[in-house]
Amino acid sequence: MDPKARRGRPRSGEADARIIDAALELLLERGYDRFSVDEVAAKAEVAKTTLYRRWSTKDHLIVAVVARMQDEVPVEYSGDVRADLTRYLNAIAAGLHRMGQAGRPTASGDTSAGLVAEVAAAAARHADIGAAVHAMFVRRNALVLRLLEQAREHGEIGPGVEPEVLFDQLAGAIYYRLLITGRPIDAAYVDRLVAGALGGSAA
Amino acid sequence: MDPKARRGRPRSGEADARIIDAALELLLERGYDRFSVDEVAAKAEVAKTTLYRRWSTKDHLIVAVVARMQDEVPVEYSGDVRADLTRYLNAIAAGLHRMGQAGRPTASGDTSAGLVAEVAAAAARHADIGAAVHAMFVRRNALVLRLLEQAREHGEIGPGVEPEVLFDQLAGAIYYRLLITGRPIDAAYVDRLVAGALGGSAA
Repeated sequence: MDPKARRGRPRSGEADARIIDAALELLLERGYDRFSVDEVAAKAEVAKTTLYRRWSTKDHLIVAVVARMQDEVPVEYSGDVRADLTRYLNAIAAGLHRMGQAGRPTASGDTSAGLVAEVAAAAARHADIGAAVHAMFVRRNALVLRLLEQAREHGEIGPGVEPEVLFDQLAGAIYYRLLITGRPIDAAYVDRLVAGALGGSAA
Repeated sequence: MDPKARRGRPRSGEADARIIDAALELLLERGYDRFSVDEVAAKAEVAKTTLYRRWSTKDHLIVAVVARMQDEVPVEYSGDVRADLTRYLNAIAAGLHRMGQAGRPTASGDTSAGLVAEVAAAAARHADIGAAVHAMFVRRNALVLRLLEQAREHGEIGPGVEPEVLFDQLAGAIYYRLLITGRPIDAAYVDRLVAGALGGSAA
């Protein structure tokens, strides 16, 4: 055990924040495979037992780190839903790119899904990780669904539009490109996507 | 080496088909982790070297099996793009469900992404698997993009609609639910999705 870990007894919120900070930094530096919970405990100066009591596996801790990354992006209705969606989807794309680059040399040119795919695979392998990932997205996406409801109340989107279906189309397209087809996701694509989803395709 | 493998020299197309048949059956029965290339060689009665010369890793062979599953679903424009998309997306959902259940007891109630997530993770880990997965989707999705172009020529979808963006919204929503949010994908959802994408969301 790290000697410093025994010294104080920070309140749990403080320790949690320190753990997540350390975990985020190490995760982006190392990537999924070389990310180690023990190293996070050392860096955060908390006892390993404290860390494992809170997050029982590496994957649980990674989910918490991803949630923290999500929370860095504000979601607020500005009165212009097209601008809001464009900004938010570009932020998602940037976050996914950052996760995709985790543990890779800067400017490696590698555009693969990296960590994002590892988290999806862990969610598929272990029911408890799956539940944690799903809960994270329910919590986070609720903010965007609320934004879309406000846009609907303001008459920017149609009264019959289902916010969840609309957001699935938008976020889904981005994850699909990242995880499945490998097609590029840039600002021009986000513009085309938002225009397509808002405008509809029927003649 | 299996003695039968030495006996004849089937033309390579024949051997390939026998290998893929055997691999599909074993993959659905065993799931990703317990799927073994050596076992496929034995079941298909081909020499391991023949198999490895054609598909150098388990993941390459799995990509070929997935491509074969995709090819079981016809893609043809009927003159009613809404019906065509609904049918095709339900077929995708059924195929993904079948892959998700690979190696699991029947009716396990487990709705996780299983094999689908493993393939996405392998694609992210290894550049050559990523390239094979992307090529598979380029080839396959070209059929749907052609269908959407025909619908556009027939005036069923708007002249300014980009088939690729529209299909990303549709297929993307399904993969997003499967791999990320865990929300259900049933026929009612597919109907809402197709209606949302064709109808658009702007007021």
